[in-house]
Amino acid sequence: MSSTILVIHGPNLNLLGKREPEVYGYLSLDDINQQLKTQAQASNISLETFQSNWEGAIVDRIHQAQIDGIQFILINPAALTHTSVAVRDALLGVAIPFIEVHLSNVHAREAFRHHSYLSDKAVGVICGFGAKGYHFALDYAIQKIQPST
Amino acid sequence: MSSTILVIHGPNLNLLGKREPEVYGYLSLDDINQQLKTQAQASNISLETFQSNWEGAIVDRIHQAQIDGIQFILINPAALTHTSVAVRDALLGVAIPFIEVHLSNVHAREAFRHHSYLSDKAVGVICGFGAKGYHFALDYAIQKIQPST
Amino acid sequence: MSSTILVIHGPNLNLLGKREPEVYGYLSLDDINQQLKTQAQASNISLETFQSNWEGAIVDRIHQAQIDGIQFILINPAALTHTSVAVRDALLGVAIPFIEVHLSNVHAREAFRHHSYLSDKAVGVICGFGAKGYHFALDYAIQKIQPST
Amino acid sequence: MSSTILVIHGPNLNLLGKREPEVYGYLSLDDINQQLKTQAQASNISLETFQSNWEGAIVDRIHQAQIDGIQFILINPAALTHTSVAVRDALLGVAIPFIEVHLSNVHAREAFRHHSYLSDKAVGVICGFGAKGYHFALDYAIQKIQPST
Amino acid sequence: MSSTILVIHGPNLNLLGKREPEVYGYLSLDDINQQLKTQAQASNISLETFQSNWEGAIVDRIHQAQIDGIQFILINPAALTHTSVAVRDALLGVAIPFIEVHLSNVHAREAFRHHSYLSDKAVGVICGFGAKGYHFALDYAIQKIQPST
Amino acid sequence: MSSTILVIHGPNLNLLGKREPEVYGYLSLDDINQQLKTQAQASNISLETFQSNWEGAIVDRIHQAQIDGIQFILINPAALTHTSVAVRDALLGVAIPFIEVHLSNVHAREAFRHHSYLSDKAVGVICGFGAKGYHFALDYAIQKIQPST
Amino acid sequence: MSSTILVIHGPNLNLLGKREPEVYGYLSLDDINQQLKTQAQASNISLETFQSNWEGAIVDRIHQAQIDGIQFILINPAALTHTSVAVRDALLGVAIPFIEVHLSNVHAREAFRHHSYLSDKAVGVICGFGAKGYHFALDYAIQKIQPST
Amino acid sequence: MSSTILVIHGPNLNLLGKREPEVYGYLSLDDINQQLKTQAQASNISLETFQSNWEGAIVDRIHQAQIDGIQFILINPAALTHTSVAVRDALLGVAIPFIEVHLSNVHAREAFRHHSYLSDKAVGVICGFGAKGYHFALDYAIQKIQPST
Amino acid sequence: MSSTILVIHGPNLNLLGKREPEVYGYLSLDDINQQLKTQAQASNISLETFQSNWEGAIVDRIHQAQIDGIQFILINPAALTHTSVAVRDALLGVAIPFIEVHLSNVHAREAFRHHSYLSDKAVGVICGFGAKGYHFALDYAIQKIQPST
Amino acid sequence: MSSTILVIHGPNLNLLGKREPEVYGYLSLDDINQQLKTQAQASNISLETFQSNWEGAIVDRIHQAQIDGIQFILINPAALTHTSVAVRDALLGVAIPFIEVHLSNVHAREAFRHHSYLSDKAVGVICGFGAKGYHFALDYAIQKIQPST
Amino acid sequence: MSSTILVIHGPNLNLLGKREPEVYGYLSLDDINQQLKTQAQASNISLETFQSNWEGAIVDRIHQAQIDGIQFILINPAALTHTSVAVRDALLGVAIPFIEVHLSNVHAREAFRHHSYLSDKAVGVICGFGAKGYHFALDYAIQKIQPST
Amino acid sequence: MSSTILVIHGPNLNLLGKREPEVYGYLSLDDINQQLKTQAQASNISLETFQSNWEGAIVDRIHQAQIDGIQFILINPAALTHTSVAVRDALLGVAIPFIEVHLSNVHAREAFRHHSYLSDKAVGVICGFGAKGYHFALDYAIQKIQPST
Repeated sequence: MSSTILVIHGPNLNLLGKREPEVYGYLSLDDINQQLKTQAQASNISLETFQSNWEGAIVDRIHQAQIDGIQFILINPAALTHTSVAVRDALLGVAIPFIEVHLSNVHAREAFRHHSYLSDKAVGVICGFGAKGYHFALDYAIQKIQPST
Repeated sequence: MSSTILVIHGPNLNLLGKREPEVYGYLSLDDINQQLKTQAQASNISLETFQSNWEGAIVDRIHQAQIDGIQFILINPAALTHTSVAVRDALLGVAIPFIEVHLSNVHAREAFRHHSYLSDKAVGVICGFGAKGYHFALDYAIQKIQPST
Repeated sequence: MSSTILVIHGPNLNLLGKREPEVYGYLSLDDINQQLKTQAQASNISLETFQSNWEGAIVDRIHQAQIDGIQFILINPAALTHTSVAVRDALLGVAIPFIEVHLSNVHAREAFRHHSYLSDKAVGVICGFGAKGYHFALDYAIQKIQPST
Repeated sequence: MSSTILVIHGPNLNLLGKREPEVYGYLSLDDINQQLKTQAQASNISLETFQSNWEGAIVDRIHQAQIDGIQFILINPAALTHTSVAVRDALLGVAIPFIEVHLSNVHAREAFRHHSYLSDKAVGVICGFGAKGYHFALDYAIQKIQPST
Repeated sequence: MSSTILVIHGPNLNLLGKREPEVYGYLSLDDINQQLKTQAQASNISLETFQSNWEGAIVDRIHQAQIDGIQFILINPAALTHTSVAVRDALLGVAIPFIEVHLSNVHAREAFRHHSYLSDKAVGVICGFGAKGYHFALDYAIQKIQPST
Repeated sequence: MSSTILVIHGPNLNLLGKREPEVYGYLSLDDINQQLKTQAQASNISLETFQSNWEGAIVDRIHQAQIDGIQFILINPAALTHTSVAVRDALLGVAIPFIEVHLSNVHAREAFRHHSYLSDKAVGVICGFGAKGYHFALDYAIQKIQPST
Repeated sequence: MSSTILVIHGPNLNLLGKREPEVYGYLSLDDINQQLKTQAQASNISLETFQSNWEGAIVDRIHQAQIDGIQFILINPAALTHTSVAVRDALLGVAIPFIEVHLSNVHAREAFRHHSYLSDKAVGVICGFGAKGYHFALDYAIQKIQPST
Repeated sequence: MSSTILVIHGPNLNLLGKREPEVYGYLSLDDINQQLKTQAQASNISLETFQSNWEGAIVDRIHQAQIDGIQFILINPAALTHTSVAVRDALLGVAIPFIEVHLSNVHAREAFRHHSYLSDKAVGVICGFGAKGYHFALDYAIQKIQPST
Repeated sequence: MSSTILVIHGPNLNLLGKREPEVYGYLSLDDINQQLKTQAQASNISLETFQSNWEGAIVDRIHQAQIDGIQFILINPAALTHTSVAVRDALLGVAIPFIEVHLSNVHAREAFRHHSYLSDKAVGVICGFGAKGYHFALDYAIQKIQPST
Repeated sequence: MSSTILVIHGPNLNLLGKREPEVYGYLSLDDINQQLKTQAQASNISLETFQSNWEGAIVDRIHQAQIDGIQFILINPAALTHTSVAVRDALLGVAIPFIEVHLSNVHAREAFRHHSYLSDKAVGVICGFGAKGYHFALDYAIQKIQPST
Repeated sequence: MSSTILVIHGPNLNLLGKREPEVYGYLSLDDINQQLKTQAQASNISLETFQSNWEGAIVDRIHQAQIDGIQFILINPAALTHTSVAVRDALLGVAIPFIEVHLSNVHAREAFRHHSYLSDKAVGVICGFGAKGYHFALDYAIQKIQPST
Repeated sequence: MSSTILVIHGPNLNLLGKREPEVYGYLSLDDINQQLKTQAQASNISLETFQSNWEGAIVDRIHQAQIDGIQFILINPAALTHTSVAVRDALLGVAIPFIEVHLSNVHAREAFRHHSYLSDKAVGVICGFGAKGYHFALDYAIQKIQPST
């Protein structure tokens, strides 16, 4: 069965859980990905995850999502949130609805983190809830894909 | 038993569900409030709701929350998001953690809606998911109050 | 017979005519309201007026206008022109066409008075004509309601 | 009898009524001018009109107004609203009171249309009422010239 | 004997002394008000105090001050400092001289607290001295009212 | 046969080829106009040219274009690019598609030349190719008029 | 003998001396022009003057200056100072050195008068000395043309 | 024979022709590349094309162009137009003249698309003509390489 | 006994009382200084004063204050308020608490006077009370030094 | 006989004529001062000159000018033009009319040189004429002091 | 022995020494790297170097540095200085102290080069000294690692 | 032998080492100056140092440097970095190459410290390395003066 939902993690998120766990939580990215897959399977939905520190790789992955028939994307663009028009154009190019997720509350951080190249085109935006944010986004995405469920 | 969680709805949210349901959804504010209470009760938590078109009433209500021992506030400040330092100061004054919820994706609307006087002090911010946003916020708040649950 | 047109006067307009009449004119707000009612009655239209120094009261009154079947609103938002997203949202929420009126020429005053949260959504804007501005606005509103008249 | 009131129409207003009548109205500029003359004559006041796409011609015409003893100017500066200091200086130079009229609601259009080089020196400003705006302005001007009328 | 001086406390100042006394001082608002009355009485002057979290109530109170013959206003506008044109217009409307007082040093806080809608119309501005600031302002006001004293 | 395409040259372009040919090229405006006519005739299309240092004359000429049935306008607005809302309004008023051409690369010049009042309404914009830019624009315009050619 | 120096007066300067002489001086533009001619003749230099309210006429006149062999231009661009890139381009196009003169001190007037499209390309700028400013500029220009004199 | 001209297509341009052909045209990137090669061969010039969603790959390709003796680059930087100093530095580093091409009219899109990190260093810029823009740019480049042709 | 409090007066304050007494008061700087010394002595505190038009002298004096064991500084930085980082750094360098005093209400004056390089590091700021401002500041400083008094 | 006119030269003007004479002219500051004294004496007016690299010394000198009965000041504030509020306040404090002179055309230099803290309070401003600028200013000042001469 | 110090060179630095040596110096990147290794070895410290035109590769390399136990990073981010939040986040993520080095004086170049996403988190910043800058940075880093040396 | 290199320390640097040594280091300014002299003597170069809290004294000292034949200046302008055009002009006036040194990382401090009036004219800029920064700058300066050494 081909996957339905794609979760994209941007630059530096591979470091998750490896240091300062009291700040970022004790979960590694693998832990989060595994939990999301479990949550998706509970609704009989296939979910894939992808992390890269390379903007180009993320753009390519988004293009592939269209070919693979992905119906919803959850993306934590991390640093690319504030700098990448290419990711914006890729998401608009494939016309797959997406939710923007941030682990931390970006509004409480440096001023340059208050602008996102993605937010105005997202279905919705979640920040500040740690890994929980992904689960909320996935919950919403599943509901959209399976409205009758 | 005194309430634990307070949900505050800002100006004009009393119009919810009364017009343009295809845009804002068919749920009235009462419907949403009822659903939230049900969700809270499932975790054995008491939840109160409050809506006002008056900034002063909302400030007063936040002050009362401290007296009542409220442990978490969910707030959709609506128009006051962008104009009220008084609500910000009230929330900081009572020092109760809060989550900021918006029904629509404010980033896709007028430029003046991209600034919030509350976000940098919120635990987290959710926008664009309609009534679902409240449920996600409540889910998170309950978890914080009952970490062992 | 229910009213058709509502005239809303914002904060401090209750002071009208009470001081510096050489500047603001010798008419009190009651005088103006009475003249507007007379003008409306000449076209067989019922007109109500409302003044408040409270933003919340004005928002509530706009909501009530929808329930009452008001077809046109004339509003002099005064200080709220520059600070109230709540009034903007209320007017958009009830979807009643409105005209923005200012007694003085706001463009000749402090810079912060050059921006209005209402103008881009108004049918039209009039400023600088004193009480005459209300009469022009009412004339226009009546014509819109009774095009065949 | 020399004229008392001058109505000036800025660039492109000669196109009025010739295209997109559903947007700009079915009245041509000649129709409007004729109506304004009729309105003035009812108060026994002589009114002249002038349209030009040339800033210099409008400046010259304003200078001539002083020589002709014009007592009030109604001006729809159109595109020159936003770009002409020369028209501003001409109006200040002849020291004739003027009203600024716009057919459309400029606040609902491009951002560069939100600034006017004339408004802070105008008696008043009217926008968004179509041809009606000229009539309101004329009404006001006549009253100022003939206060006892 | 009618009162001569009015002290207005803006939103959230009712929380004073109730929490973080090491920061805001151990004095409650009642304590401060009592001290100010004592100070006024020493000069044989009657002083009233008013606190509200409601902008509209403060505007109404300022209007009432004119009717009551108040000669000087001391105002700590708190959050309204930065957001309320209505309070500014009320103070200008009643034409009673006023002093702006802030307990904390607003210049050392968030950037949005560096702008005041009142300061340029105040007699003077005091910030950073805690409750002492009110006493200084009252001292000055009394001297202005009783120059020969 | 009436003309189909109009080429408008803005202020100071009449100086072309008369000085600093090593910078602006050895072609005079007449040379360019002649070449463009030849290019148009090869596609059996009639082309007219117009140059003026007067904004009003250019606005008038654009209005005339509509009367004459011109189907496409090529315009090098020169200095008016950055200052003329009147030319913008004229082009929008006649609703004839147009291409914006600049001989030099405006992006490599003074900052005020980086903004154009026309570009967002143009079919396309060409700059930096000298006289070649007109030929490219004409090529495109002919193709649009004669898609089957 | 062809002229050597050209003096250009921008929009509204034809009003000079006709009104508010206590402000702008009792000299008419003709008086000033005559004085400048006398001053030039004393150095055996021919001087021409030109005034227009039309930007296009001024651009044309600058172009003609090059053909006539004018060696220096004195220009009071008046309102066009702040709005005309066309005059800037004309002056650069003919490559004749020029001095910018203003009768009043533009720095003491509206903020939009603090920017000039000409100053950075002028030999020098003089403002605030009334008609004297032209004489200073002419003195300098003559000296540049006749350095050995 | 080594190639003379290099055409670089930035991120997401590989999607061209694959979706929304009524908007972006029915030509795929391969179609455009083939047409450009044909056009180049007609002038006996070898042309290479390159597309990547990776900024780094484009920088590397530009470096290689210098080694390969490429004489002219046509680049549609797409999203990188607005975000990549690295591509700017690469083009300046190899000192190969380049033309900037955009399929759509970037001036009619989001404000962030109005700034380009490349334009001020380009020979020229073309936007809004779809695939035709490449052909114009190629035409110009060939002429520059083969001026005697 | 070494001094405990230092009062610093910035540039041009030596002119105080010498001209426009109806504006700045009839007190000379010497008068004010004498009054402040008297006020300090009443609390058995030694107070020194210093005025200079030289930024460097003021910086030196602040350094000396540390050596002299000064415990509190009152400073009216006058023009240096808006331009001197050196005075800010000196005050931070010696780590002596200071109060910023202005005779006039700086918020009612030119825009450049609304920014201070000192305020965010001051204990408090007083403006608009004339010489009284110094007395209030001294009162506060004495209280801080002698809390038990 | 006490002096009537004071000429102040700001920082670094003592370097004049000592280097890069082809740029700044071959005249030293002493040469210029001597010429200005000669020019003043021809009108039987005493003139003093002062140069300092120290802002404080210039402020002191302006204060002294008032005591000495100086009637007009010519000032080339040089670098202090853009940074010194103290010099502005000194000139306003002594209320002596002054002219601002710059040797070079400041508008053609760095952006920070386009703002002056003095210009809006000067009688007039001259820049770009080298030493000649002082002579023009002196000519004007003499005429103001001796209107009948 | 594992390496202790890592030197990262950003995009386009591989071109170093290959062209315009009179500008950038005759040293290639290999030359510089070899010199740095020699310098490090003299202190018995192992040093690695890395250059990439790919932001993703640099982020990956920084992550690897943490795994490898690198104690200090010297980074010349080149173009990424101004555009990469990802590199900033990577450096913060691995928490290795770093020094920012630029060969040229970035303050003397385009305005967009005056902002760095790294500087506020760097130990220090060096620019304008060519290859010498790396040696200074290395000297400092070695001293920090071997304080007792 | 006359000196070759001059080191200038700006305002407040005389406080160095006297307080908060854990922050600014234990070295006094004398210690640093002595070390720099030793370093210079090792290259047989004479070095002088100068510190002042007075801008004017620093400008005078820079002028003297030219007379003394100084070949290189190292300057830590401290607070004057951000406020002194006079120091900039002095350095440009004497045309002696200079290096800008800051002890702390100015990019990590207040926003107003991110702009320097000197950096764009400096040979290079060093910040964040404490006293080490002077040594690096001196090393570079010596190498420039004695390239063959």
